[in-house]
Amino acid sequence: MLNDNQFEEKTIKRKEIYRGAIIDVMLDEVRLPNGDHAKRELVFHSGGVGIIAFDEQNRLLLVKQFRKPLEKTILEIPAGKIDPNESQTPERTAARELEEETGYRAENFQQVASMYLSPGFANEIMYIYHAIHLKKVLAPLAQDEEEVLELYALTLPQAKQAIADQLICDAKTIYAIQYWELMIKGK
Amino acid sequence: MLNDNQFEEKTIKRKEIYRGAIIDVMLDEVRLPNGDHAKRELVFHSGGVGIIAFDEQNRLLLVKQFRKPLEKTILEIPAGKIDPNESQTPERTAARELEEETGYRAENFQQVASMYLSPGFANEIMYIYHAIHLKKVLAPLAQDEEEVLELYALTLPQAKQAIADQLICDAKTIYAIQYWELMIKGK
Repeated sequence: MLNDNQFEEKTIKRKEIYRGAIIDVMLDEVRLPNGDHAKRELVFHSGGVGIIAFDEQNRLLLVKQFRKPLEKTILEIPAGKIDPNESQTPERTAARELEEETGYRAENFQQVASMYLSPGFANEIMYIYHAIHLKKVLAPLAQDEEEVLELYALTLPQAKQAIADQLICDAKTIYAIQYWELMIKGK
Repeated sequence: MLNDNQFEEKTIKRKEIYRGAIIDVMLDEVRLPNGDHAKRELVFHSGGVGIIAFDEQNRLLLVKQFRKPLEKTILEIPAGKIDPNESQTPERTAARELEEETGYRAENFQQVASMYLSPGFANEIMYIYHAIHLKKVLAPLAQDEEEVLELYALTLPQAKQAIADQLICDAKTIYAIQYWELMIKGK
């Protein structure tokens, strides 16, 4: 068994490629454990939250939105980016995104997972919460002006059909639906 | 219900930020459905495969490797990038990566999921295969020289402990372990 520093890649040089609103991009030259040098393309992102939430009829809340990198409109669980400038916990980000995107508030947010989405090149982490005891809000927080969203509520068979139809096609939402199935079957 | 072009964001201008070995980065100016303009930072990636494979004792095969964006050594299911220059199917990429990273060959690869990992800014898709009927290869394909990998085989309780310890912490591997649990409980 190797110890951890037999794996480590030390940065020798870092070149800044881009600093943006959502991502920063860097190109590192690293020294491999065998002494060789290699390049690593890196995307830095402040992370996000995804929320598993059910309505009064035990249907999963989903939002439909256009995703520019895919040139496609897809269905996802409510989610959003952690603002690195707000000193907000991921849980507060989850509460805000749930209300903005669905018009619901929850009594309680249980963290059920945290996952790096693409650890080969990106440090983006996603915290997944199960929102408990939802209530519809009369005057919810306004939606982000740069997003067109439409709210859906699906039963488990409908959600599985949406995966088959590739309308649900992203990692956090597929995770959420497996979580739902495992919840029903009992852990 | 809105129709699809009520969501669409049309590219007005695209600026190339970076063309790399693993990712390309673009900055689009888009026209929103309401006529406003917005910026979209986009990462293009050729996609990858992840392989769910079990050894003779029904333990999940995992590889330990250093991930530069996280500055951490983690455990993941065998995986790799689809080479856009090879005209290979994702299934052949899965076969190659399984052999290179674990020294096993499989009789059959069943696709169990495909998922966009980070649809907010990246078009990266991950195809997940369940590799069936594994056999140890006497002289397997050589590992990538730029990677230090160590092979592990974990039982389900060990894998769940590794999630609790955050040694397993990426989306495709957490998906794989949920898939395993659902397989055991029966679909």
